Amino acid sequence: MIPVVAQDYRTGEVLMLAYMNEEALKATLSTGIVHYWSRSRRKLWKKGESSGHLQLLKEVLVDCDGDTLLVKVEQRGGACHTGYRSCFYRTINGKITQKRLFDPDEVY
Amino acid sequence: MIPVVAQDYRTGEVLMLAYMNEEALKATLSTGIVHYWSRSRRKLWKKGESSGHLQLLKEVLVDCDGDTLLVKVEQRGGACHTGYRSCFYRTINGKITQKRLFDPDEVY
Repeated sequence: MIPVVAQDYRTGEVLMLAYMNEEALKATLSTGIVHYWSRSRRKLWKKGESSGHLQLLKEVLVDCDGDTLLVKVEQRGGACHTGYRSCFYRTINGKITQKRLFDPDEVY
Repeated sequence: MIPVVAQDYRTGEVLMLAYMNEEALKATLSTGIVHYWSRSRRKLWKKGESSGHLQLLKEVLVDCDGDTLLVKVEQRGGACHTGYRSCFYRTINGKITQKRLFDPDEVY
């Protein structure tokens, strides 16, 4: 299982960090839709399956050590289950840096 | 210990993924120069200490779960010890997508 950084292929915005195992990577490459391995649910996780906020795969890059991936994606809706475009929506001091795109109560 | 994504604060380019523990985060915040925790050497790692390719801290963002950081940095030189600007210099199919910035043999 390796960490995967998802980045908006147009804006360069970093959307989230999640994990893939071999199954998730194969599903991602064969379907063109990003799949992760959910560590909490211990199962394959098609990102956006319930919300419709899919990540359409544009490119997969590997880091120098071969133990991290960067996926460039077209993000439908918001990447974050809290309603923000990116999971990185606040600074370490707690300041919110984005506007909510959607109300999670209406989506999930 | 948590994963940390380093991103060029000007271009949005994702430079690398590394790890911080509490000591590394404190050193980063107090000095304004990014420090990681080296998992292989099991010690505090001031990024660029030997190469001069420092990362000057611009912003620290936390993800929704509070278990990943995104640091926006001014990258001096290249982030990757192989001589590339970013550690993500090749696709999953092995195609090199960047030009080398420096010769590692001359720097290390």
